[in-house]
Amino acid sequence: MSDPLLPSFTLRIPEGDGLPRKVCDHCGFVAYENPKIVVGSVVRADDTVLLCRRAIEPRRGFWTIPAGYMELNETPEEGAIREAHEEAGARIAIERLLAVYSVPRISQVQLIFRATLEDRGLEAGPESLELRLFRWDDIPWDELAFPSVHWALNHEREATAGASPVPFGNPAGAAGTHMPDGRPLPVGDF
Amino acid sequence: MSDPLLPSFTLRIPEGDGLPRKVCDHCGFVAYENPKIVVGSVVRADDTVLLCRRAIEPRRGFWTIPAGYMELNETPEEGAIREAHEEAGARIAIERLLAVYSVPRISQVQLIFRATLEDRGLEAGPESLELRLFRWDDIPWDELAFPSVHWALNHEREATAGASPVPFGNPAGAAGTHMPDGRPLPVGDF
Repeated sequence: MSDPLLPSFTLRIPEGDGLPRKVCDHCGFVAYENPKIVVGSVVRADDTVLLCRRAIEPRRGFWTIPAGYMELNETPEEGAIREAHEEAGARIAIERLLAVYSVPRISQVQLIFRATLEDRGLEAGPESLELRLFRWDDIPWDELAFPSVHWALNHEREATAGASPVPFGNPAGAAGTHMPDGRPLPVGDF
Repeated sequence: MSDPLLPSFTLRIPEGDGLPRKVCDHCGFVAYENPKIVVGSVVRADDTVLLCRRAIEPRRGFWTIPAGYMELNETPEEGAIREAHEEAGARIAIERLLAVYSVPRISQVQLIFRATLEDRGLEAGPESLELRLFRWDDIPWDELAFPSVHWALNHEREATAGASPVPFGNPAGAAGTHMPDGRPLPVGDF
C-alpha cells in the first residue's frame, strides 16, 4: 500500500442531517462523533478501596479508580469488570450503580458501580504504575487524577454510611472542569 | 473538489492499541467505534403518557417515547429535553433517572428519565408522524417500536405505584433482541 494521505476533515452538514459533522475530504466518510461512555467501579476490600496510579497520560502518576472507555458489544457492568481486570488484575463483583456523572465539555458520561474485590490477587496492568488498597484516611486526595474520582470516592463513603441506593450525579454545579479544591486540570481531552 | 474516493476501511490493530479498529485505507484515519448513548424520557401529563409515532426507519409507523442519540457537549438531561422538543415540540421538566438499559448487540446504552409535560403545546417534528397522550389502558402495546419502550412504560408504571427511586435496568434475561411478547425485530442497527 502506498503511504496514506494525511487525514483531513471538513465540518459540514451531511444531507439529511441537522448538525455539522466531520466529513473526510478524501473519501466523504462522515465521522459521526458521539459522547463516550466511561465505565468504572469503586472497589472495596474490607475497609479499603482500590486505587491505581496511572502509567499513561493524561494525569500520569495520579491515582484513579479502575475505569475506561466502554467497548462495543458489552454491557456497562461487563465493561467495569473488564477494566478492573485490565488495570489491576482484579476480579470484582458488581453490587449496583453508584453514580452517573457527565462531563459535557469532553462529551463524556461515566457509569460508576459499587463493587467488591473477590480475592486479593492484584497485578498492575500496562496502564497502571502501582496499585494500592487505601483506608479512607490514607487516600491521597491531592493526587487524584480526575474530579470524578474525587466525587466517586465521596459518594461511595455516603453509600457506605447508608445513603439511599439512588445513583449520585455530579455534585451541584460541578461540570468536571477542575479539581474539587479549585486546582485546574491540564488542558486536554479528559 | 474532485469526486471523493469511496470510503474503504480495513480492520486492524493500530499501534499501541489492543483491539482491531476500522482504519481508512486512504488516509490512515482510525474510526474508533464506541457504544452510543440514547437519551429519552417517559413524559407524563396527568394520567397520560406521551408517545410519538415514528416517521422514520427503523420501525416507521410504530410508537415510541421521545428519545434519540445524545449529542456532543450536552448532559443526558439536556439531551432528553432536546429530543422531546425535536420529536414532539414538547417542553418537559425532568424529574429523575427512571432506567439505564443496555442493548449490547447494537452497543447501545439508554438513559431514560421520568418527566412531566410543562404545557399542552405539542407539534410533531420531522421524525414523528403523529403524537398522542395515551391513558395506560389505551397504550398500543402491539405497536410499540422497541423492547425498551415496553420496558420503560412498565417501569414508569411501577415508579408511579411507589417503587423505590433506584433506576431500573433491563428486565431479567432481556437483551433487547426481540419484543417482550416474543416477536422478532426486523434485523438492523437498532
